Amino acid sequence: MALITNGRAIFNSYPGGFPEPGKTIIYDGKSTIDLDLVSLNGGVLVKTLELSIDPYLRTLMSQPTMGYKIGRPTYGPGIAVVLRSENEKLKVGDKFRISMMPHQQYSVLKEEQLGDLNILKNPYNLPWSTFIGILGMPGLTAYEGWRYYSKAKKGEILFVSSGAGPIGSLVIQLAKLDGLKVIASAGSDEKIKFMDSLGADVTFNYKTTNTAEVLAKEGPVDIYWDNVGGETLDTASANANICARVIACGMISGYNNNHATPLRNIWQVVARQIHIFGFHVSNQYPNEFYEFLEPEIAKGDIKYAEDRFLGLENVGEAMSRVQRGLIKAKAVVHVADEAH
Amino acid sequence: MALITNGRAIFNSYPGGFPEPGKTIIYDGKSTIDLDLVSLNGGVLVKTLELSIDPYLRTLMSQPTMGYKIGRPTYGPGIAVVLRSENEKLKVGDKFRISMMPHQQYSVLKEEQLGDLNILKNPYNLPWSTFIGILGMPGLTAYEGWRYYSKAKKGEILFVSSGAGPIGSLVIQLAKLDGLKVIASAGSDEKIKFMDSLGADVTFNYKTTNTAEVLAKEGPVDIYWDNVGGETLDTASANANICARVIACGMISGYNNNHATPLRNIWQVVARQIHIFGFHVSNQYPNEFYEFLEPEIAKGDIKYAEDRFLGLENVGEAMSRVQRGLIKAKAVVHVADEAH
Repeated sequence: MALITNGRAIFNSYPGGFPEPGKTIIYDGKSTIDLDLVSLNGGVLVKTLELSIDPYLRTLMSQPTMGYKIGRPTYGPGIAVVLRSENEKLKVGDKFRISMMPHQQYSVLKEEQLGDLNILKNPYNLPWSTFIGILGMPGLTAYEGWRYYSKAKKGEILFVSSGAGPIGSLVIQLAKLDGLKVIASAGSDEKIKFMDSLGADVTFNYKTTNTAEVLAKEGPVDIYWDNVGGETLDTASANANICARVIACGMISGYNNNHATPLRNIWQVVARQIHIFGFHVSNQYPNEFYEFLEPEIAKGDIKYAEDRFLGLENVGEAMSRVQRGLIKAKAVVHVADEAH
Repeated sequence: MALITNGRAIFNSYPGGFPEPGKTIIYDGKSTIDLDLVSLNGGVLVKTLELSIDPYLRTLMSQPTMGYKIGRPTYGPGIAVVLRSENEKLKVGDKFRISMMPHQQYSVLKEEQLGDLNILKNPYNLPWSTFIGILGMPGLTAYEGWRYYSKAKKGEILFVSSGAGPIGSLVIQLAKLDGLKVIASAGSDEKIKFMDSLGADVTFNYKTTNTAEVLAKEGPVDIYWDNVGGETLDTASANANICARVIACGMISGYNNNHATPLRNIWQVVARQIHIFGFHVSNQYPNEFYEFLEPEIAKGDIKYAEDRFLGLENVGEAMSRVQRGLIKAKAVVHVADEAH
C-alpha cells in the first residue's frame, strides 16, 4: 500500500578488540519497504520477531573474506513470521527460525537463505524468544553436549563456567536431573542468585573468589563444561579427576584479546587421562529435544532467563555487552510482536 | 649351592631436572643370593632377562610418597624366567612379563608383585625383548590408542611426533595399513631414515626443520598422535583440520622442565571441533593384539628397532638418555640370556 520504514542494523567497521556500539554496528532507519508490492521472486516476505545475540557472533566481525560485510546488515539466529510467500515450504502466518536472519524489520528471503529452516510448532504457547534461547541453539548446545560427551554418572562432580548463561544454566539443570554435584561460576551476584535458584550446589563469583581454591576444596572435577577457555580451562585441568571429561563449548575469554592467556596445565590431559571434546552444535533439532524440554519449561520445572533489548537500534549495544560479559542472561533483541 | 652376585640398580637421589647416571641411579654389585637355598615363602625365584626403559619412568623419580624409594632397586616393565616356584600360577621355565620388575639379576617375587602377570607364549620364537617393545606396553599403547581414538579414514592425514620411538614407529605402520598419509617427526637423521623405512610419507627433523611450516604445507592434520606435548601440541592444534583427533599419549617435553612451555592455540579445540584423548594403556593384552602383530613381525612386514644397553650397570645411563631424547629407538636393558 505504502512505503514504511524498514529499520536495519548495519555492520560499519571491524573492531580491534571489543565491538563498540555506534561504531562497529550502527542503526539505519532510512531504508523503506512496501510490504504489499515488494517482489518476492519465489521467496518469502517475513517480519522479524526475535533475534539472538550470541558470543560466537564475534567471530563474524573479524574476517573480511567471511562473516559480516561492511555496509550490510548483520545477522544471526532469529525468529520471524511469514507475511507473504511464493515458497512452497512456508505459508502465511508460519513462524520459523533460521540461523542467519538479517538484522532488519522486514526481509525478503530467497530459497538459499532458508537453508536451515525450522518451522516452529510451539504447542505450549511459550514466548517466541524461547526458540532462540533454551529451545534454540544455546539449549540444543547444552542438550547435545551433555548427551554426547558428558558420560555423566550419578554422584560425579560437574564444574560449569558461565553457569548463568543460556547454555550453562541448562547444563546445571541437566546435571542436577542426572544426580551430579554442581559447581558453577559466573561474574555477578545477580547471576549467582540465578544459579542458586537452578539448584547448583556450589556457586561463586569468579571475579571475587579464587577458582582454584574452590575447585581444590569442592572437586576434583569429573566433568568441566567450558564456556570460557583460557585461565579457567587451565585451572580446571589442574583440578580434574582421573578420566575427567572437558566439554569445550566456547572460549570467549580469548575472543577479544587474541587468545593471549597461555595454558600451563594441559599436560594433565595425559597424566589424568582427560578427554577434551571441542564441539559445535549440530543444528539438527531432534523431536525429543522439544518433547523433553517444552513441557518442563511450561510447568516451570526447567527455568530460563533472558536479558531483553528492545528494537534493532540496540543490536550494537547488545553485541558489545555480550562480549564484555555485561549481560545477566540470554541476550535477545525483541524486534516486533506477532501481529502487525 | 653357593652365594653368587645379584647385581642391582639402586635409586640414589631425586633428580632436579634430567636424571644423571651415577647420581640418580647407581649400580650395586655387592649384594649376593643363593639360588638353591633362598626362601620363597610361597613366591617365585626369577632371573631377569630384559628390562624396558620408558619415558614415563621419570614420573616415579619425583614423588617421595609414591614411586622409587631411595636406596631400593628401581623397577619397570620386564621379562623374566622362572627358576623355582611355590606359586601355582608359574612353573619352572615359564617366561613372563610384569610392569614392576625389580632392576636386579635375581628376584624373589611375592604373589602381590605378580599383579599384572602375563605369561608369554611366543609361538614365533621372537626375541624376548620384543615383549617389552612392540609386543609390550609401547606396542599395546599404539594399538589401543589407534583402535579406540583415531577414527582413521583412508586418505586422512596423520602427524606423529617421536615417530621413530617404540610407540610412534608402530603408529606410523598402523596408519599406513589404514591408507593414511603420514607426516612424522624425530630428532636425528638416523631416526628419519628409520621412519622412511617404515613407509612414512613426509619425515623431518624437528631440530632443524620448522614444524609449523611442514604442517602448513603438508596438512591440515586429521589425527595428531602426540608423544611430546608442549610446543608441538600447540603447533599441531594450529594446523588441525576440522574435527581433528589428538591422541595424547605422552608429554615428555614437559617432564624435565616442569611443563614450562605455555600453550596458545588450545582455543582451536572449539573453533575446529577438535577432540583430545588423553589416555594410558590398559595393560589388558587382548589375544588379537598378539595374533595380529606376531606373524607380521615374524614375516618382517611390521618392523621395530631397539637401542640395547647391556647389563644393570647401564640402567642409569639408559634412563638419562631416554629422558634427553638421545636414544635411537626403544630402549632395552639386556640383563641375561635365557639359560643360566
